[in-house]
Amino acid sequence: MGQTLTEKILDDHLVEGELTPGEEIGIEIDQVLTQDTTGTLVWLQFEALGLEEVQTELAAQYCDHQTYQFDFKNTDDHRFLRSAAGTFGAHFSRPGNGICHNVHKENFAEPGKTMLGSDSHTPTPGGLGELAIGSGGLDVAVAMGGGAYYIEMPEVVNVHLEGELPEWATAKDVILELLRRLSVKGGVGKVLEYTGPGVETLTVPERTTITNMGTELGATSSIFPTDDQTKDYLERLGREDVFEDIGPDEDAEYADEIVVDLSDLEPLIAEPSMPDNVVPVSEVEGVDVEQVMIGSCTNGAYEDILPAAKMLEGRNIDKKTEMIVAPGSKQASEMLAREGWTAEMMAAGVNFSEATCGACIGIGHVPASDSVSLRTFNRNFEGRSGIEDDNVYLCSPEVATAAAIKGEIVDPRDLADELGDLEAPGLEMPDQYIGNSESDLIAPENAVDDELIKGPNIGDVPLKDPLETEVGGEALLKMEDNITTDHIIPATQDILMYRSNVPKLSEFTLSRVDDTFAERALEADGGVLVAGENYGQGSSREHAALCPMYLGIETVLAQSFARIHKANLFNFGIVPLTIDEETYEKIEQGDDIEIVDDAAEAVKSGQEEFTIRVNDDWEATGQLDASEREREILAAGGKLSHTKQQHDEGGAAPADD
Amino acid sequence: MGQTLTEKILDDHLVEGELTPGEEIGIEIDQVLTQDTTGTLVWLQFEALGLEEVQTELAAQYCDHQTYQFDFKNTDDHRFLRSAAGTFGAHFSRPGNGICHNVHKENFAEPGKTMLGSDSHTPTPGGLGELAIGSGGLDVAVAMGGGAYYIEMPEVVNVHLEGELPEWATAKDVILELLRRLSVKGGVGKVLEYTGPGVETLTVPERTTITNMGTELGATSSIFPTDDQTKDYLERLGREDVFEDIGPDEDAEYADEIVVDLSDLEPLIAEPSMPDNVVPVSEVEGVDVEQVMIGSCTNGAYEDILPAAKMLEGRNIDKKTEMIVAPGSKQASEMLAREGWTAEMMAAGVNFSEATCGACIGIGHVPASDSVSLRTFNRNFEGRSGIEDDNVYLCSPEVATAAAIKGEIVDPRDLADELGDLEAPGLEMPDQYIGNSESDLIAPENAVDDELIKGPNIGDVPLKDPLETEVGGEALLKMEDNITTDHIIPATQDILMYRSNVPKLSEFTLSRVDDTFAERALEADGGVLVAGENYGQGSSREHAALCPMYLGIETVLAQSFARIHKANLFNFGIVPLTIDEETYEKIEQGDDIEIVDDAAEAVKSGQEEFTIRVNDDWEATGQLDASEREREILAAGGKLSHTKQQHDEGGAAPADD
Repeated sequence: MGQTLTEKILDDHLVEGELTPGEEIGIEIDQVLTQDTTGTLVWLQFEALGLEEVQTELAAQYCDHQTYQFDFKNTDDHRFLRSAAGTFGAHFSRPGNGICHNVHKENFAEPGKTMLGSDSHTPTPGGLGELAIGSGGLDVAVAMGGGAYYIEMPEVVNVHLEGELPEWATAKDVILELLRRLSVKGGVGKVLEYTGPGVETLTVPERTTITNMGTELGATSSIFPTDDQTKDYLERLGREDVFEDIGPDEDAEYADEIVVDLSDLEPLIAEPSMPDNVVPVSEVEGVDVEQVMIGSCTNGAYEDILPAAKMLEGRNIDKKTEMIVAPGSKQASEMLAREGWTAEMMAAGVNFSEATCGACIGIGHVPASDSVSLRTFNRNFEGRSGIEDDNVYLCSPEVATAAAIKGEIVDPRDLADELGDLEAPGLEMPDQYIGNSESDLIAPENAVDDELIKGPNIGDVPLKDPLETEVGGEALLKMEDNITTDHIIPATQDILMYRSNVPKLSEFTLSRVDDTFAERALEADGGVLVAGENYGQGSSREHAALCPMYLGIETVLAQSFARIHKANLFNFGIVPLTIDEETYEKIEQGDDIEIVDDAAEAVKSGQEEFTIRVNDDWEATGQLDASEREREILAAGGKLSHTKQQHDEGGAAPADD
Repeated sequence: MGQTLTEKILDDHLVEGELTPGEEIGIEIDQVLTQDTTGTLVWLQFEALGLEEVQTELAAQYCDHQTYQFDFKNTDDHRFLRSAAGTFGAHFSRPGNGICHNVHKENFAEPGKTMLGSDSHTPTPGGLGELAIGSGGLDVAVAMGGGAYYIEMPEVVNVHLEGELPEWATAKDVILELLRRLSVKGGVGKVLEYTGPGVETLTVPERTTITNMGTELGATSSIFPTDDQTKDYLERLGREDVFEDIGPDEDAEYADEIVVDLSDLEPLIAEPSMPDNVVPVSEVEGVDVEQVMIGSCTNGAYEDILPAAKMLEGRNIDKKTEMIVAPGSKQASEMLAREGWTAEMMAAGVNFSEATCGACIGIGHVPASDSVSLRTFNRNFEGRSGIEDDNVYLCSPEVATAAAIKGEIVDPRDLADELGDLEAPGLEMPDQYIGNSESDLIAPENAVDDELIKGPNIGDVPLKDPLETEVGGEALLKMEDNITTDHIIPATQDILMYRSNVPKLSEFTLSRVDDTFAERALEADGGVLVAGENYGQGSSREHAALCPMYLGIETVLAQSFARIHKANLFNFGIVPLTIDEETYEKIEQGDDIEIVDDAAEAVKSGQEEFTIRVNDDWEATGQLDASEREREILAAGGKLSHTKQQHDEGGAAPADD
């Protein structure tokens, strides 16, 4: 039987297990990536594990979320990250040099390699045939130490592309169409592998828009085969030496197939406040737009901004609409500046920002109250933009720019009809991409630090004791479906600057759901969270497990868990138990929850069904779906405790974790 | 007897009083300027006064401090300001279009005109022969309503320039030299009028750097005569029609003369944490620099950034040093982008920001803890950068760029010797400046709003009752010399976003001096502030009087007051009494202070000496130095109450205030 591309790459990197969907496998990691809101903890954990040097082929630390450095803690974090990269042997990308996924794609992405990144959009270089997976930071720290990465073997789904995109439809519309069809849960436990004749019609920048936003489907990763387009792109980057011709076997078998005819696509838009609320732009024409933002790891590349610049040439944006362009990388900024496009956009009224993730996570350019913002980003979760009752729409740069010109949502095809002289800009790549300044992207051999520089807000990582016999407590919070990690720990500036200061950060845990929660949890000294489907979707941030752990949460009962967050719960010693809908409906906030079994023993012994006793009155069953390795970690009180335990016992080095 | 240029312009605009230093005069205002941290209150006051349309020749509302829109309240403020400008007939400059002083200079500054602005650096267009004065926002609101502006006739001091700047010395060094000689109090009550053969050697952009930072001397304003340089600059702007040939009479008499030989100047730097801590750069060489910032209303113009770009061409900045360039206007950004300089700076490792005041007031790019930041800004007051124990140095773009290249403070002449191929960039102007997009600078006739749009954080302005008979209370806080308005109400982002929400903002009053103050003041329900010399120096923000008023402060006893702040105290109904050093030394925090006189009566009757009874034990004298008009305002409970009172009594319209 032939192999899918995903299976081939996994096979090449397999150190444990078998490639059977649902079974745990351990894989070797070639490259790792961290950014500034997750990286501080990664390096503190790397330090706590007693590791001395990065063991992967390549590690890269980016500073992209907090580039505005609104607080000295941000600037201190960046300095710490530079010092950690220098001390331990990683590449360091300075604040302002761009978003991790963009800079990584431009500089390091390689066909056939595996990558682990402490950011949920890590799958971006799947557009170049790299198998890249987002994870919690602790997994990244362990992988950097040379340890394998453990994951349930995903199902590989074939997304078969046919036809060719018509004018004004873009790669963004491909992924929005998939979100429309599959929903934000549609990719959970799956790798989406793109095949078919439509693939060769898409350039690499278009492919990476699709693989990047595959994360919003909940997919483990998304990947394209390599071909002439890949080779061409790498040549323009001056990195043709890393090209490898890879793809699935002709007789590869997929778990499922989805067919998308590109020629059927039209401009789409995700309405507030979920990326899968997708409708044709034409259905929401006429909505007043106060803000338009182009950028992010999804649509912040040179190829994404250039169409906007072409559309704006010789025009003014609407006077009621602010338009901000925040490039995904300084490479994009510099090329657009060199070619005069930056000046053209400025002349049209664009506010041109430094390269940053910024607004996508609510840092800067927060929309006005009761207003509509159109963004080329990948997420529009309620409140993520920095204002609670936001109205954020997601779309392509073309649709966003059309709205900026018109001051309201408009299908760019209709705007073109109206204006008469507006042409579909299409996609254009430069003959040669420019490289980064060696001050902006500092290679390990050029590092300027050989010891860690910690500011006063950078603390140690808390350790949890081994799992106790009795687990349970009050159901401190009952939540609905699709609770995101943004709900658990918001990523807004006022909060995330404490990400290296766990006690302070924990005060904000789940505040968006119930702002009394953190205080109640601390007072209760332990307790239980209850949630519906898809608990912990969204960003990979491990603080969403670390902070509940710090507050004493011992178990989460949910109808289902998002993949990365579930791994984070194991890593921080919190027991994730799956409950059925009936149990979920029956449990009320404030109930007294008791795991009847000896938790420590049951977890270690491989027990799958746990008896949950509620109010000493009725019982239900919680499923623990965990590998032997995950059970060991859980019993030890989390991965850090577990890895340290192995050290203390003189056992396997963390590199063999 | 001949007249100085200042006297000529004042004479042309005089509506009350005589041009005798120390006497109060009322002058007609031609132009007004507001920005986004003071503007919301200006327009709310304009609205509260019942005024319907701007009466000055020109009014302009800029959005420059909060351009990052870190909170929806900022974005709401910008929308409100656009709506106010549209409704009442002012020009509106969008966030990202640049700093008020730069954009105003480029678009509206006119020789011979008077301008009032609710920003302390309003004197900037003095470089083009405009007499521009910073004031509290309420004065601006009244002036916009057509009312005269009242001020003590300043002394006019002649700064006689000789010679020509040598290589590597710049306009920044001229003003730093004056600060070194005169201190931050040296210009109080004075207008500095530049004359002499050195004037014609300075271009207008150089002159505006000097007039801008004259504010740090405490000067009421600074002004240059017009000449061929002025004409040339206006021609390059396409505004030669506003040129007027104006200057002092040959036999003008000045109160004092200061001679500066430009050819004696060398690169200077202000050490932390006062702009007058000036030494030659060569004396502080070798200090490690972690951050370099180029921008601000002092040195953020095209002509300021271009030298930095030239110095960086083909080089990389030091890997340990972050360099951020935040242009003063989008005009500068666009021109630098069009000419390829932006790309060159990016290639060298510069993080290129949107046009903003930002970091100068602690919003964004806050220095790391225990680090040195070199900035081309005008203020380095302790904590202003956003971190309490900062180390901010002020210098020219050339000195800042040299530090970025070397990673430490270095005299650029020494760096040029060291590198061999680093040439002094000199000053270069474009043949033609480009204009603003009509979306970025919206003229009143193109306004998009005809009613005010208020977000939920935009409230009403509080009114104070008329002055009571008994004034006094506990000495709630005793402060030292040179307390700035940054001490009184910090301008950092977390605080200033409440500037349209007075109760919330007041919680931060004087928190940098004593963070228990606001709570104690509210509890005490009234009280007294005690300060040394130069109380209230720095920015013009009227919140520094409004918030103490809201907290119940009735009088401030100080050895001396900064001019704008004293006017703000009158405007908000707080009695400013000058005490001598002995009294200052003797009063202790917590003492019970009582004004023995019937305050309301004494203020109204013109009484100058007030008896202060302390702890029912000893007495001292406080001087009230106030015009009849100021006394009326004080007695009424402040200017807003006073103006409303006039309305209610059917008396003089506010336009005649």
